Amino acid sequence: MTTNVPERGFTDNEFAARTRRAQELMARDGLAGLFLTTEPEVRYFTGFQTVFWQSPTRPWFVFLPASGKPIAIIPEIGAELMRRSWLDDIRTWAAPTPNDDGISLLTDLLRPYARERARIGVMKGHETVLRMPLGDWERLVAALPGLEVADSTSLVHALRMIKSPAEIEKLAYICSLGSATFARVPDIVCHGMPQDEVFRAFRREALAQGVDDTPYLVGAAERGGYRDVISPPDRRPLQNGDVLMLDTGLTWDGYFCDFDRNWAIGVADDRARRAYDVLWRATEEGLATARPGNTCRDLFQAMGRVIAEFDSSGATIGRLGHGLGMQLTEQPSHADFDLTVLKENMVLTLEPSLSYGDGLTMVHEENIVVTADGARLLTQRAAPELPVI
Amino acid sequence: MTTNVPERGFTDNEFAARTRRAQELMARDGLAGLFLTTEPEVRYFTGFQTVFWQSPTRPWFVFLPASGKPIAIIPEIGAELMRRSWLDDIRTWAAPTPNDDGISLLTDLLRPYARERARIGVMKGHETVLRMPLGDWERLVAALPGLEVADSTSLVHALRMIKSPAEIEKLAYICSLGSATFARVPDIVCHGMPQDEVFRAFRREALAQGVDDTPYLVGAAERGGYRDVISPPDRRPLQNGDVLMLDTGLTWDGYFCDFDRNWAIGVADDRARRAYDVLWRATEEGLATARPGNTCRDLFQAMGRVIAEFDSSGATIGRLGHGLGMQLTEQPSHADFDLTVLKENMVLTLEPSLSYGDGLTMVHEENIVVTADGARLLTQRAAPELPVI
Repeated sequence: MTTNVPERGFTDNEFAARTRRAQELMARDGLAGLFLTTEPEVRYFTGFQTVFWQSPTRPWFVFLPASGKPIAIIPEIGAELMRRSWLDDIRTWAAPTPNDDGISLLTDLLRPYARERARIGVMKGHETVLRMPLGDWERLVAALPGLEVADSTSLVHALRMIKSPAEIEKLAYICSLGSATFARVPDIVCHGMPQDEVFRAFRREALAQGVDDTPYLVGAAERGGYRDVISPPDRRPLQNGDVLMLDTGLTWDGYFCDFDRNWAIGVADDRARRAYDVLWRATEEGLATARPGNTCRDLFQAMGRVIAEFDSSGATIGRLGHGLGMQLTEQPSHADFDLTVLKENMVLTLEPSLSYGDGLTMVHEENIVVTADGARLLTQRAAPELPVI
Repeated sequence: MTTNVPERGFTDNEFAARTRRAQELMARDGLAGLFLTTEPEVRYFTGFQTVFWQSPTRPWFVFLPASGKPIAIIPEIGAELMRRSWLDDIRTWAAPTPNDDGISLLTDLLRPYARERARIGVMKGHETVLRMPLGDWERLVAALPGLEVADSTSLVHALRMIKSPAEIEKLAYICSLGSATFARVPDIVCHGMPQDEVFRAFRREALAQGVDDTPYLVGAAERGGYRDVISPPDRRPLQNGDVLMLDTGLTWDGYFCDFDRNWAIGVADDRARRAYDVLWRATEEGLATARPGNTCRDLFQAMGRVIAEFDSSGATIGRLGHGLGMQLTEQPSHADFDLTVLKENMVLTLEPSLSYGDGLTMVHEENIVVTADGARLLTQRAAPELPVI
């Protein structure tokens, strides 16, 4: 468990290394450039970190040429912050300008590539969004006849899936803060407390532990289990016999933890205890399977075999875990369709879930880093039996 | 100032009225349907509220036909929550399914429209994003020859700009919680406190006041002013002579406040006091100008005339305020380019800013609702002179 507070940010060397690795893959794929519009990708190559992305008003662009540093094409309001990054070439405009929100700047930048009928990578695959108005994108492409646009989703995902030591340090730290927060839940939550107060108490505790923010918190509490893991909290007070689940994505320096814990309020019924035990053991199987060379499908099947002892429906919340980093959920997916081979320094969630009774569900989740020796837990392992508050 | 806690959610009647108004505008524009992919729009027509949108893994779709209720095409994980909405037609798939993440369901739904060469609205204009993989969108359009896709950005923005009484009640409530939090800052912040601790203390206080979350918090503190209003906090301790600014978007039941406050630490220098006074009076001009019939440009120019007393650069952070609601920033923009006519029940920020000295900047912000009689403040008006902590 990390106890010291890591340094914020990254060295310029780290950004240079990320860029160099990207350019090697771009050369392999015959890409003359990579056009990026989304927060994690912009941050990955530049270090540009701001919550200002929450405003939908302004698009932000980074272009990675085949060699040299990335180029930023951004609203003037971000210039001061971007100038502190390792970039040299920062082009700005006075956004918002609805009839030309960076499009002229992008057209000027890309015109030479279009003239050479070059191939440019854009992320347009699974789990991606083009973060600019579709109309602007259509205008941009129309203004650049000859430019070939290729899907570079897997190229960028392949890079981002493998974390650097500095990234792992941040992830370990936010997981340790999350563990410390969960450990305090029995002290800050009590019978009779409305769910929305539980959420507020949890968020305040996480901040007291030192997280930067608590952007993701879902949970539920119902008699003997819960039905739904994505709803906002209601005012229903915690009652004897409830199973309470809290699942949180906390952040520190722009990196997420993503794990949950379950508790019984007052008393745990047999079925809930059994579901908990199955999921705890499924997670153990996941921990044993998460080693370099195995695939995400292997992880899915290993956890699934234990789950099937109790729940033969095969119904899951879609997958049994995923990548973790600058986003709450990243590639890969522990699912039957995902043949990604596990590699050292992947940071993953193990997230077995099952259904029981009349539409009840239960979810466990831990966060790990894959090492040469197998899984290393970043979270403090959940208790082997359903804890009672 | 609202003091009672409003009801969470909205009545089915409210969603029916929103849908009816949309369908009237769709009829005007010759649209046979409206295709929506983004959180605020899905929530606006269905009430579907979850922080699960933070995961980029799954797309979510709503289709509004020319008459009748909206149709949801969503991942199975959201079915339970969507079933609690007023919708009848909810179609789901087991997402993530990378090779068919809802595309077959959408193709089936839209094929009859394509056959009739109907016109479908999609938001592709300023301040929008198509929240699905670009590759999936291209495949969908290719599978539906004959379908005409029109930009419906202004249609949706025109609806969402005018808030209902229930929406205004929520916005007034979160603004009152924000005001109560800002009022406590002199008690929770002190000389020598590192900026990131200031941010944490502010977030904890906001939660204690009753907000659901503190998704947006930016700020800065430097000697005599600050340079940058979008950076994350650093570890620099507050010092005598600093001007501290905190700008926050807090949420309650999915609605945002968005305003800031400034304080001097220990002592305020003349220049900072003068900048503050100019911005305070610029806001007064904004308040006097924010009445039905005036335009956003009028607001921009009224505030700009006061700002020019002190800062003749004409440099702004791009605009002097914007709409407010389910998003931190919404249409319209108080800018020279925006000729939107102010109407009753628009909720807006007034956000004058100026530059002074060697790259220093200062920003004020209040939140208002436009009434027949002019602006009604939703925030507790900032002190007329720069307060000293």
